[in-house]
Amino acid sequence: MADYRVPRDDMQFLLQDVFHADQDWVRFSALAEVDMDMATAIIDEAAKLAESMIAPHARAADEEGVTFDNGVVTTPANYKENFQQLAAGGWVGVTANPEFGGMGLPKVVSAQYEEMLCAADISFSLYPGLTAGAIITIDAYASDELKNLYLPRMTAGEWTGTMCLTEPHAGTDLGIIRTKAEPQADGSYAVTGTKIFITGGEHDLTENIVHLVLAKLPDAPPGSKGISLFIVPKFLPDADGNVGERNGVQCGSIEHKMGIHASATCVMNFDAAKGWLVGAPHQGLPAMFTMMNYERLGVGIQGLGAAARSYQTALEYAQERIQGRGAQVSRNFDKEADPLIVHGDVRRMLLTMKAFVEGGRAFSTYVGQQLDTAKYSDDASEKVRSEALVALLTPIAKAFITDTGFETTVIGQQILGGHGYVREWGQEQLVRDCRIAQIYEGTNGIQALDLLGRKVAGSRGELLKPLLEDIQAVLDEPVAELEAEYQQLAEAVKRVSAVTEKVLSQVGRDENVINSVAMEYLHLLGYVIYGYLWLRMAKAALPLTAERPHLSSKVKTAKFFMARLLPRIESLAAAVEDGSQSLYLHELSEF
Amino acid sequence: MADYRVPRDDMQFLLQDVFHADQDWVRFSALAEVDMDMATAIIDEAAKLAESMIAPHARAADEEGVTFDNGVVTTPANYKENFQQLAAGGWVGVTANPEFGGMGLPKVVSAQYEEMLCAADISFSLYPGLTAGAIITIDAYASDELKNLYLPRMTAGEWTGTMCLTEPHAGTDLGIIRTKAEPQADGSYAVTGTKIFITGGEHDLTENIVHLVLAKLPDAPPGSKGISLFIVPKFLPDADGNVGERNGVQCGSIEHKMGIHASATCVMNFDAAKGWLVGAPHQGLPAMFTMMNYERLGVGIQGLGAAARSYQTALEYAQERIQGRGAQVSRNFDKEADPLIVHGDVRRMLLTMKAFVEGGRAFSTYVGQQLDTAKYSDDASEKVRSEALVALLTPIAKAFITDTGFETTVIGQQILGGHGYVREWGQEQLVRDCRIAQIYEGTNGIQALDLLGRKVAGSRGELLKPLLEDIQAVLDEPVAELEAEYQQLAEAVKRVSAVTEKVLSQVGRDENVINSVAMEYLHLLGYVIYGYLWLRMAKAALPLTAERPHLSSKVKTAKFFMARLLPRIESLAAAVEDGSQSLYLHELSEF
Repeated sequence: MADYRVPRDDMQFLLQDVFHADQDWVRFSALAEVDMDMATAIIDEAAKLAESMIAPHARAADEEGVTFDNGVVTTPANYKENFQQLAAGGWVGVTANPEFGGMGLPKVVSAQYEEMLCAADISFSLYPGLTAGAIITIDAYASDELKNLYLPRMTAGEWTGTMCLTEPHAGTDLGIIRTKAEPQADGSYAVTGTKIFITGGEHDLTENIVHLVLAKLPDAPPGSKGISLFIVPKFLPDADGNVGERNGVQCGSIEHKMGIHASATCVMNFDAAKGWLVGAPHQGLPAMFTMMNYERLGVGIQGLGAAARSYQTALEYAQERIQGRGAQVSRNFDKEADPLIVHGDVRRMLLTMKAFVEGGRAFSTYVGQQLDTAKYSDDASEKVRSEALVALLTPIAKAFITDTGFETTVIGQQILGGHGYVREWGQEQLVRDCRIAQIYEGTNGIQALDLLGRKVAGSRGELLKPLLEDIQAVLDEPVAELEAEYQQLAEAVKRVSAVTEKVLSQVGRDENVINSVAMEYLHLLGYVIYGYLWLRMAKAALPLTAERPHLSSKVKTAKFFMARLLPRIESLAAAVEDGSQSLYLHELSEF
Repeated sequence: MADYRVPRDDMQFLLQDVFHADQDWVRFSALAEVDMDMATAIIDEAAKLAESMIAPHARAADEEGVTFDNGVVTTPANYKENFQQLAAGGWVGVTANPEFGGMGLPKVVSAQYEEMLCAADISFSLYPGLTAGAIITIDAYASDELKNLYLPRMTAGEWTGTMCLTEPHAGTDLGIIRTKAEPQADGSYAVTGTKIFITGGEHDLTENIVHLVLAKLPDAPPGSKGISLFIVPKFLPDADGNVGERNGVQCGSIEHKMGIHASATCVMNFDAAKGWLVGAPHQGLPAMFTMMNYERLGVGIQGLGAAARSYQTALEYAQERIQGRGAQVSRNFDKEADPLIVHGDVRRMLLTMKAFVEGGRAFSTYVGQQLDTAKYSDDASEKVRSEALVALLTPIAKAFITDTGFETTVIGQQILGGHGYVREWGQEQLVRDCRIAQIYEGTNGIQALDLLGRKVAGSRGELLKPLLEDIQAVLDEPVAELEAEYQQLAEAVKRVSAVTEKVLSQVGRDENVINSVAMEYLHLLGYVIYGYLWLRMAKAALPLTAERPHLSSKVKTAKFFMARLLPRIESLAAAVEDGSQSLYLHELSEF
């Protein structure tokens, strides 16, 4: 596996020159201590861990995998030490509340850190990643007593967190879960049931594991309005947070998977395990969605990290491997062949990767900035606007970054030919590891349904407005070098609006329309957002190219994106316009 | 892993009702003994082997893999017995020359058999598959002496065959291979060099392995015009074909790969190994391409087999797994949720799979029919026309069936959600196994270059004509039920012609244009060909639906394909029309 180098310059360019994050930090009182120097220092420090500590073990960890023996899960060599070192540096609590020991960093910065961790080793990243999500949920919904007991340990990375949703018969459809929680005399609950696909459900990294579990109270109304959230620790802590007796929760087995071999995916059996209610009874789903929404951008970033790593390796390979002759002008006359990168089809593949990777990085930073504004802005109307943008963008970030991320890793494998298919170079591992990100934390199909159904149709299109305003702000100030591309984006926005209106006009008349076109609609919006971000990046880069010549690549990649990738919206729009019609011709027996 | 059931009805429908293969068999004297009853019997017999003998071991074979110990390769449990049973039934020589014991079956029939084998277990299928390719090459180019010595044993499946092309520094670019062949006094050659990625280079299935090796003679001109082909057996046979002393060829190691774990991918070291020239000196590449062309449709069929298997499992799962509620009309009121198949997005995924699988089956049968006509027709002009079609269609069949096949397996995994990511259901194995088909036997990028460069541009577009004639023949007789779809296909054909003209007009002025747009061009043609085949199938199905009601699904899937998948040509055409422009803006340092 090739070495990993953190794309520090690109991260810096985004924070400073594209999104001007420092202007937010000046305005938001809670972030007054953050400045660009600090962000740079954080990125440099995280980069060292990712490059030197985590990345070098990713391939061996994939080969070794996690092992299960009679309820005990053992992680690969170096995982425990590395997790402890990460925790000791405060990185598990990177965005967590400073009141409980967190760094309280803005999401625009932690998004860069998360990308590095995922690029270095997705399996490893899941242990701190899930913990960070659990911290946020507990911080937002649990009682002060639970917060004081759990958050300091979790923030310090002494205990990890999980989210226990899925059951054998209930994945996407949480309304039908069967795990039960019986109230006990001492105010706790006895939680009983089986949860599957629990990431980090059991492992040997830390002394305790804190499960957030969805379960039904005896008086629960049926369906998704009858779900409550519980905190269920592996070991019961005493009042001082010292780990005590073992709770009634056991790992029954682990899954054998396509990838993320070093992440323990567990079947968890709860047998009258002691748990405490988090938030109000029957209000578990909204609470869990706090965590899910946080995780969903994080899962998008997993796709980005894998894609970024794959691009680095593919680029290196294409520059070094000589094979065939390019057009006359680029010939390598002293060697027997030219490097792969002279060939048009290889450049097409590399630029597609580059456009998706840097576009995805810009997108995750954009969403991060909106999350920061929603959380930290002192201006109520700005806050509301960013909340709306986050609601709209989260499902797109999760699904579009992972779909294009997967496409990127597959291309990165293709560029290496047979060497991409063997394990040695690590390209195939990135494909396998990235693949899960399209499936878990709500499949990408579910994200699409959330976007088009709940968000766009649910608001009669209102929720699109802040995004369209942001895009319009760029369109209103075109630059001469990219005139045609600005025109193209303006046309694409019109296409989105027309398609949206058409879908909205069918809602009510056709119960199947949303679910029938949601995926293509999400991709359509995704390409338009990347087009917008590419023009924003190109525009930000143009005045800086004299000083930083490498930034001229932003303008060129923007042109590539608009010429070769944005046209995909034509096919997507046509599919959306077809509605549900061609999907419901078949009787069940005719498949 | 779910059971595999051979789609006998669809195969029958294609042979009999769509392609009227029996009308060819009546006309071609060499196939006079073949009729539809015989074809049906063959398909039934092969189906038994695929369903009951091969498929049940595929998952265990993936887990076990091949093992390497000091030059010896051991295949998984059941592989040896199954291979011997396959051989005993004559299936290794299914298309081979009857003069040497082959069945001499037409390719339209063997394409169905190959699909079954690949759907059952791609790893297993490679051992007989490569052997069949080697048989064809030896039959076409070797001396009578070599043919008499090798072909009876290979046809009987007593010995297997390999093709040894790639070297550590030379994959796509065979012109720079370094393996040498020194003439010896006895008329043989001493072959020395290292070959990598050799499928079935070493194994324990048979008593001998026959390598077809590309090497350079001492007086070879440089580049691809200086390559010769040699037959190099693992054990030297005596004049009666009895296996004698060990030759100087050894397996140095095997690769650890993303998939096809049960197929031995070997590094082969030739150390003055005794070999015999096949064909004329320096004419090795054209001879090897005989094999490659045969294999290329075979590799396309690997993508089809994996996709077909994935579709079966996904469909079963979507019919049985209940999750969420569909629109009012389809509600499963006695259960707590509806089956997945009621949801629009799941239907979109299933129909995409179905359209690619049945479209791919029609395509491989179409190419098979052209191969048969080229080989067996007694009419010289018909022969020439089919040869031209085969030349045009082969790279498309290899690349488009595997690219859409891979997309299909990824969708098939997505439909199962987390259950698609774990190994148990086998969907993830199909993704991993299918992936190699886009890479080997010439990457799909190389297929695209062959199509657009050598075939289309090389003939100034002439080679497209027989295909466009075939499509026009369907367009000339539209059916009322599909009027809009016929119109749409006619427009798509116009689009292809316009795009082709634009590319051809740039050739000569722009050395990079072919390589820059070849991949999208290949996909563009692929979608139009599938559109054509879907209308042919729909038209053939329409008059038969009274008797065989299930055939109404052909009309419906055709409508789905035209509505949701054919529109992809818009984005592809736009990308092709961009030419090389946006790919060559970047300096090497700007990537």
